[in-house]
Amino acid sequence: MQTRMDEVKAQVQGALDSAIALLPSGELADAMAYATVGGKRIRAFLVMESARLHGVSDDAALPVAAAVEALHAYSLVHDDLPSMDDDDLRRGMPTCHVQWSEATAILAGDALQTLAFRLLADDAVGDAEARIRLIRAFADAVGAGGMVWGQALDIAAETSIEPLDMKAIKRLQGAKTGALIRFAATAGPLIAGDDPEHLDRYAAKLGSAFQIMDDILDVIGDENVTGKRVGKDDAAGKATFVSIMGLDGARGEARRLVQDAEAALETYGEAAGNLRELARFVIERDT
Amino acid sequence: MQTRMDEVKAQVQGALDSAIALLPSGELADAMAYATVGGKRIRAFLVMESARLHGVSDDAALPVAAAVEALHAYSLVHDDLPSMDDDDLRRGMPTCHVQWSEATAILAGDALQTLAFRLLADDAVGDAEARIRLIRAFADAVGAGGMVWGQALDIAAETSIEPLDMKAIKRLQGAKTGALIRFAATAGPLIAGDDPEHLDRYAAKLGSAFQIMDDILDVIGDENVTGKRVGKDDAAGKATFVSIMGLDGARGEARRLVQDAEAALETYGEAAGNLRELARFVIERDT
Repeated sequence: MQTRMDEVKAQVQGALDSAIALLPSGELADAMAYATVGGKRIRAFLVMESARLHGVSDDAALPVAAAVEALHAYSLVHDDLPSMDDDDLRRGMPTCHVQWSEATAILAGDALQTLAFRLLADDAVGDAEARIRLIRAFADAVGAGGMVWGQALDIAAETSIEPLDMKAIKRLQGAKTGALIRFAATAGPLIAGDDPEHLDRYAAKLGSAFQIMDDILDVIGDENVTGKRVGKDDAAGKATFVSIMGLDGARGEARRLVQDAEAALETYGEAAGNLRELARFVIERDT
Repeated sequence: MQTRMDEVKAQVQGALDSAIALLPSGELADAMAYATVGGKRIRAFLVMESARLHGVSDDAALPVAAAVEALHAYSLVHDDLPSMDDDDLRRGMPTCHVQWSEATAILAGDALQTLAFRLLADDAVGDAEARIRLIRAFADAVGAGGMVWGQALDIAAETSIEPLDMKAIKRLQGAKTGALIRFAATAGPLIAGDDPEHLDRYAAKLGSAFQIMDDILDVIGDENVTGKRVGKDDAAGKATFVSIMGLDGARGEARRLVQDAEAALETYGEAAGNLRELARFVIERDT
């Protein structure tokens, strides 16, 4: 898996750099480039592997992988803003508004969202019908019924007196991080016009496990390894999987979810080895 | 023209309300609805009239008109933020971040951009090829090579010591307001697969005239009529068409541009009566 992941990382960085190089030079493009460097590229990896499983070439899937990472980068830039999560460290570097300015960070995020849609419309991806299927699913995953809605619920929870219960946390995280992960993992069948059911179930479980690990790393993680501030949830008195289930309970739940995720891949047999390994990586990671 | 404009206003408001009604209810959807109420709907009118001139039905053009207004609404919400233009009044109402919060305004703007792309992918618009043509042109008009780039140039100009010269102002405004107006006016030929050349020239001239009038209204306008703060450019020491050409010079330039815009419509004959009238309205308006 690691070889393929390194390959995807390099390919996606190349695609993002090329797309940004086409824009007028200046602070805006520089801030966009800054925001799209680094990261684990798990979403891009999901796109590329789900494409491979459905007979879609790397060349066709690459703009979609780059789109998903551009969108993810925009969401981080806006989430980190002072009026949102107010973070100063991301991927081990100053956050975008610290490095540039709040105005530039807002605009760079805005333009990264636009870039994501532009990449999905790329000729290389497939016929127009396939691209429209992707664009609709993508918009549903990231807009006010998906990721942005989840972030709004998260902001609302921070100012609410009642801490969230487990059901509310699952709903929030399913939207905030789950929806884009599910889009990424189903991009292959969406392009090919195949049934995305199995990969969607895999991604739903994987996304939940991923979020639980994020909550665990906020408690036990090392800032020098994670590249972002830790201990923030507890300081904010925020209800998380860990605060409700305890560390051991959360670890157990993440393990169960990863087993479910692997089970959903059965239909793909050996070919899904990389996605199985990714699922295990998600709960073993320290970053 | 007024009857058609009123008709378009009602249709577009209906389309936006319906699209937002599909989203999970709550503050985010409420803020999106708040931000999409009112306005002159000039961009929607351009979409609907350019569609009519190219044999595209109102039903097909309506999602595109709604998309353009959703995008315009997002741009106003983000432009008005404290770290950007810091405006408290828009369309005669408190701006989005004043009415709700900065975080909600940022998220509502983000989700309005997503909604715009979702609307362009609507089945009613035309075949998938037509929708992809629209989505690419739209992304180019609004992203880091279009509207957002123009806003970044505008922000940079505010903090620069050297005031902009005429060439720099034209470049800035051509991107900030011109690009979306040109997209709107060429949506009809883009859907139909026709040559957008004449409407693009019309829209380029119209957009410039529109911006010059905005600068004039910032000097001579009445806050109770414009529904937004006036006198801001002068207070900020900002170079505008008026500061460089003077009031009479700017008025004369706007009139010349409107004549050029009307001339570009010649090929359409009588059928373009509404667009001719719109061009004249743009320099006669007091709001």
